[in-house]
Amino acid sequence: MLYLDDLHIGDRFASREYEMTLEQIQQFAKLYDPQPFHLDEQKAAQHPIFLGLAASGWHTSAVVMRLWTECFPIAGGLLGTESNLRWPRPTRVGDKIHVEVEITAITPSKSKNDRGIVSYVTQALNQHGDVLLISDTKILVFRKSTI
Amino acid sequence: MLYLDDLHIGDRFASREYEMTLEQIQQFAKLYDPQPFHLDEQKAAQHPIFLGLAASGWHTSAVVMRLWTECFPIAGGLLGTESNLRWPRPTRVGDKIHVEVEITAITPSKSKNDRGIVSYVTQALNQHGDVLLISDTKILVFRKSTI
Repeated sequence: MLYLDDLHIGDRFASREYEMTLEQIQQFAKLYDPQPFHLDEQKAAQHPIFLGLAASGWHTSAVVMRLWTECFPIAGGLLGTESNLRWPRPTRVGDKIHVEVEITAITPSKSKNDRGIVSYVTQALNQHGDVLLISDTKILVFRKSTI
Repeated sequence: MLYLDDLHIGDRFASREYEMTLEQIQQFAKLYDPQPFHLDEQKAAQHPIFLGLAASGWHTSAVVMRLWTECFPIAGGLLGTESNLRWPRPTRVGDKIHVEVEITAITPSKSKNDRGIVSYVTQALNQHGDVLLISDTKILVFRKSTI
């Protein structure tokens, strides 16, 4: 597990692939984003932007979180404070998503010397190399002596 | 359902309340964010930041999406292009979340005159008025004649 002092700008992490199934896409959409283009293949095919069933962007984001927990081992856990997300392309049934993470900034706290904020960019790509999500995220990370 | 020409800067929308249950929080965490502070009440109680079980920030975000689909009726659906999220406080079991949306910018497309980008800020609050999530989101919205 990694502490603040273990991390450096430019450090990279990559995950395994996670396959998006029709069942999972529809299950997530029913609970959290019940719009026709996430639920119904025929209606989605007629949508002017999606042109076919697409996962909710928040489902793609949740899968990215899952992959972060597996490939980015921060001591004390991944404590996100903010995230700026873009979804350049829809996520489709059968997409095998992996994430690539790169640390872009490390800012020690001025008021609490046991911790700092680490910024990292993420790309989520499918098996064709299409970028499905880009994010810029900040997490709270502790120094080794403190937890 | 609302089209680009129906929307104005300063327009506001508010949702119903959505109650976060222990079962839902754990179910989401098992699938997408299996960190102890989202799954195990005893371990969460000992975490220096959470001090008790908290929902995944991505679960709170997904619930916000659900509430948007119910209270912000955009013709053709909510087509998010980007979102900037902050989670000022953890979401807890029993929190009743509602969202308040305000439109902050409307930018007609320069290249395609049938559409534009609408920016809106969202606050997700619990029953105590605590702000659990703040976001700044951009969606693609069509003019009435085009879809």
